[in-house]
Formats: sequence, C-alpha cells, structure tokens
Amino acid sequence: MKKQLIRTFVLFALFLPGVSFADGEHQVFELGNFQLESGEILPSAFLSYVTHGSLNEEKDNLVLVPSAYLGDHHGFDFLIEEDKALSPDRYFIVATDMFQNGYSSSPSNTPRPFNGPNFPTIEIRDNVTAQYRLLTEIFGVSEAAAIVGFSMGAQQAFQWAVSHPNFIRKTVGICGSAIEHPHGSVRLEGFKSAIMTDAGYMGGTYIEPPTIGLEAGGTHWAAWGTSQEWFRLGLYRDMGLDSPEGFIEFFQTFVKSWDANNLIALAATWQRNDIGKTDGFNGDSEAALASIKSDVLYMACETDQYFHIEALKWEAERIPGAKFVVMPSLWGHMAGGGRSADDAKFINDQVTDFLDANN
Amino acid sequence: MKKQLIRTFVLFALFLPGVSFADGEHQVFELGNFQLESGEILPSAFLSYVTHGSLNEEKDNLVLVPSAYLGDHHGFDFLIEEDKALSPDRYFIVATDMFQNGYSSSPSNTPRPFNGPNFPTIEIRDNVTAQYRLLTEIFGVSEAAAIVGFSMGAQQAFQWAVSHPNFIRKTVGICGSAIEHPHGSVRLEGFKSAIMTDAGYMGGTYIEPPTIGLEAGGTHWAAWGTSQEWFRLGLYRDMGLDSPEGFIEFFQTFVKSWDANNLIALAATWQRNDIGKTDGFNGDSEAALASIKSDVLYMACETDQYFHIEALKWEAERIPGAKFVVMPSLWGHMAGGGRSADDAKFINDQVTDFLDANN
Repeated sequence: MKKQLIRTFVLFALFLPGVSFADGEHQVFELGNFQLESGEILPSAFLSYVTHGSLNEEKDNLVLVPSAYLGDHHGFDFLIEEDKALSPDRYFIVATDMFQNGYSSSPSNTPRPFNGPNFPTIEIRDNVTAQYRLLTEIFGVSEAAAIVGFSMGAQQAFQWAVSHPNFIRKTVGICGSAIEHPHGSVRLEGFKSAIMTDAGYMGGTYIEPPTIGLEAGGTHWAAWGTSQEWFRLGLYRDMGLDSPEGFIEFFQTFVKSWDANNLIALAATWQRNDIGKTDGFNGDSEAALASIKSDVLYMACETDQYFHIEALKWEAERIPGAKFVVMPSLWGHMAGGGRSADDAKFINDQVTDFLDANN
Repeated sequence: MKKQLIRTFVLFALFLPGVSFADGEHQVFELGNFQLESGEILPSAFLSYVTHGSLNEEKDNLVLVPSAYLGDHHGFDFLIEEDKALSPDRYFIVATDMFQNGYSSSPSNTPRPFNGPNFPTIEIRDNVTAQYRLLTEIFGVSEAAAIVGFSMGAQQAFQWAVSHPNFIRKTVGICGSAIEHPHGSVRLEGFKSAIMTDAGYMGGTYIEPPTIGLEAGGTHWAAWGTSQEWFRLGLYRDMGLDSPEGFIEFFQTFVKSWDANNLIALAATWQRNDIGKTDGFNGDSEAALASIKSDVLYMACETDQYFHIEALKWEAERIPGAKFVVMPSLWGHMAGGGRSADDAKFINDQVTDFLDANN
C-alpha cells in the first residue's frame, strides 16, 4: 500500500502541482465468491472505491468514475471539486479501482491458489459486474446520472452502456474505445514482452520485482504516452522535467512502482476489450454500439497514439446520437487524463456542458 | 552472410513478391585505418556496396543510394529498373551499406579489440566520409547526379548535402530527417532496452544471440513500423499475413535475423544524428539546413510514426528551395521503403519528376 501511495503521490505531484486531492475515504466492498465471465470463481474478491458528496433523496445523482491503466481511484480528482464538472455538492461520485490495479482484487494481493500469475482472466465486463453490485447492493440505486471514464475507464463506461442500457443516463468516454483495435493490442504486447524478457520475471513467480524489465517497460511506454510534437516542443518542461531522458526516467520510476503481474494482467484485459462479446451480441461489435441508449459524449485527443481518432470516430458514428469531440492537444493519450491545465479545462468544460444539457 | 541473405530474402519475398532484385555484384572497398569523427581509428575498415549501370564519359551520372536501418544495399531495388526512376541505362547507381549493418564494418564482423560491444562510436558523418572516399578514389568522380535515401539513408543524404554542398546536384530524403528529433530517440531507447533486458545479452558479450530480447525488440517495433489505421483496416494481408499477431511474428523473425550489437550500435548512431554537429556549424542545425545548396526533394509519409510530418516540414522550410511532399499512405514509415505497390509508384513518380526537372 505504501508503494501505491508513493506512486499516486509521484504522479500527481508532478502532473498537477496545484490540485488538491479529492478526500473521499478509501473503502472496500466485499464481493465474496465472485463469478467471472471466464467461468472461474474468485474467492473473497473485493472492489476498492472512494466516494465524494452524498446520494440525494431521489437516489439519482450518482456518478460512477472507474479507474484507468496505470491509474487508480484518484484519476478524476481534477474534475471532482466544488466548481468543477463533478462537484460533490451536486453529485454523489463513486470512484472505483479496476480489478488487477493493486487496490481491488489483483494478482499482487490475492492468496494462493489465485496469486500472481495464477490470477484468473478478467474481462472489462467483470469490472462492470462488480460495480453494478456495488451500486445496487450498497447504494441501493437503480439508476445513475453518469459514468465518466478515461482510457480503460472509457472501456468500462462503454461496457456499462451496453450491459445496462437503461441504468446510466449519460456516458462520457475520453481517449478510450468500446473495442480494442489491433494496433493498440500490438503496442501492449510490446510493453508486456519488455517486462517478461527480464529473466527475473520467471513467468510471474518472482519474489523480487523484475526491475530491469519494468524499467524497459517504462522506457517503452515513454514514447507512447504523449506525442512526437510534445517532445519536439519540449512540453516535458511543463512536468518539471528538463529533458526527454528525464521523461524516460519518470516513466521508468512510475512503472517500477507497479507490480509486474498486475500490469501484465491488466494489459491482457485491455487487449481483449470488445463490447461485441457481451451476451446477446455474438461478437457483433457494431450491433453492440448501435444498442447504446445512454447519451454519449465521446472524446478523442488529436495526437493520441493509443486510441487514434479514426477508430474512435468509427465507433462514435455507430452509437445513436453520440457527440464526438476531438481535444486539441499535444499531450497525446495523457491529455485525456487532464495532464495539462489546458486539457483539464477542456475536459471540464465539455463534461460540464454535456451533463447540464437536456439531451 | 547466410543469415543476411535469408534476411533479405524474407523481407523482399514478403513485401515485394513481383519485383526482381537489382543484380549488381557485391563489392568491398578497403578503407584501411579509418579515422572516425570520435577520434578513434578503426583498423582494416571496409565499405560494402553494389553498383548498377555504368559511369558515363562525363562522369556525372552517379547516383548514391545509402542503406537504411534494418536494411542493406537492396533497399532501393524497387527504383533500380530500366523503366524506373533509377534506370541503370541512364545512371550509375552505387548502393552502399552503412557501417554496423553487418555488411560494412560492424560489431559482428570486426576482430578484437573492436569486436561486438567494443566497436567504436559511429556517426552518420563517418558513413559519408567513407562513401566520399569510395566515390572519389574508386570511381574518380568529382560530382554526382543525385543521392536518394530512405530513413537512415535520408540522414546520410542530408549529411552529404551539408558536408559536401557542391558535390551532389540533387538530394532526395524520404521518411528521414537531418536532425533526430527527441521522440524518435526515445522510441529507439525502448527498442534497445527491450533487447538489453535479456540476461543473455550480457552487455553485448553474448556467444549465443539474445533471442528473447531480440524477439521483444521485434514485438516493440511491430507497433511502430506502419500505422494504427494500417492495422485496423487489415493491410497486413497485403503482406500475405492473416493477423496482427502474424505481423508481430514477422517482425520478431526479422529482428532475430540481425546481430544484437549491430542493431544497438546502429540505433545509437541514429539517435545522435544531427547535421548541426558538422564542422563549422557549432551545433547550429538551422544554419546547417540553410547551408544546403543541392536541390532537395523532401518526402514525408502522412502516417509515419518515426519521422512525423511537423518535424520534417520544419526542416524542409529551412532548406533553401526544398520541395516538400507528403505521401498519402497508411503504411507509416514503411511507406518510404516502397513497401506497397501504391507507395512504390508514388515514390517512383516523384523521384522521376524531380531528377528530370531543371531546377
């Protein structure tokens, strides 16, 4: 846990020096023997989350905020402030941790026989199932105002819209997709293979972390996280770094703060993402997109190297009435996390307008 | 050598099934004790090359074609045909191998004390120096019609234009730059670190190839070589592959056919590329660009993930009179190697027009 706090601190201290943390208390929802889509049962499974604000009497002001890759329940703290899109005065915000991120049930915190590399296969839908239980069993709601997700959080948001079409009124997906398009999967394979090349990884049975592999993974990721122009124009200076090498080191340190099995398992979940695999759609992703009833704000970043505009536009065009917005930013994928002041403002303005509109 | 022949065969068999090889005979120019920019002297250095066509009486029809990364003297065979831009009936074409590519002096073919990881630091300018000696000492020319380079070949082309401003009349740089912009260097660091993470690499002193690291390097490269849309639209099928995984395996096999030290040394040369470091420019890259006297055709590919348009445009705007052309292709960087029939035709048409024009 200490490591994770350091991780979160490092991330936010560097990116958002002026932003205070949302201060919801960290909580855990015990899921018991949790049935997974794979058919396996994960015993004593649990879902980690924090909340901000209060559920209103009508029980209709809940906003679900699922976590992203290399992220946790703090991912949207920059929107969770009194005068921001997700004001705790207005909304009851539930920020969840994905399975395998080190907070919710993960390879790193699960006892034998499901520890480490033996952790069962997790789908995006398994996360949605756990969150659905949290919302209905713990908070007793039968509807929600919105879901806002970035990256793998957007994957969860779109999956919610397909799995529970009448539950959440508004869906915001930022720099993430309903289907994993093949380039993204190939990119992740490169990240995984960099880690697994370390002999110390030992097929996931390491005692000491495979540090060299994690470092190589960080180096790998450094070239993908932002954009070519971001480097050329020296925008790493906005993160307090003075060189591209400094950014590589930043990513190496960041990736090393994670557990290797968690990273690899999460990446595998990401690679398999496809709303078309939802029950009833027989692999027909386009039909699943067309089935969405929630209002949708679908945001892409023009320089995102993971989720490129063409693929996201293709998806958005197949979601009835979806609003497709392109963020003008050189921060690439990281723009979607509100990593620069301009990006944070752009996202805040868009999400505010979208949530306020009577669609 | 056998390995390299297989490598070349695999590459071309998959990419260009209908194109016959240019059939110049493989030759070696002995450079003797070769003075490097680093100050070191490489003993018994040699430069590998092939020629096509004949030098005319005026000795003014030579076209230099330097090699690219993961490439060799066959890189432009698709332009070297009777009815193509580089017709051997018209031009005397000299296709050279870069130091460290396994044909010219390289970590893999140099005896102690400069073998393997002990091979001296090579700059793009060292390649130009060796080529200049080949052209003047062996072919006795004092001018050349053109230089045509792709990727690291373009780096050599631009360096020629700065180092010998009155020697080559026309310079063609395709998907390559005169300066290595930082994103490219970070990307290459990821590739290198994937290889070096293999414990079998042993700091370059391996006896058996570090196969796992080379495979991880291939996986890494697979996501960079083309473009996101190339994968989404399944253009790997044009290479006879039936899945993105097939493309990963293709790249793994390809990278494994190379020597790890050669790859890492070549990547380091690439990372340091900067015409501003030419004697007399004191690191002023813009002044070096402005000094170019050769006619220049500067080609970018709109989806190139290595050499992005903005950086290349920035450079082209600083070269007096340069013609900047953007290739419309989804083949990313590989477009510049003429990897699809459309790309090969586009390049052929552009280079033909440029060489024929009276600029």
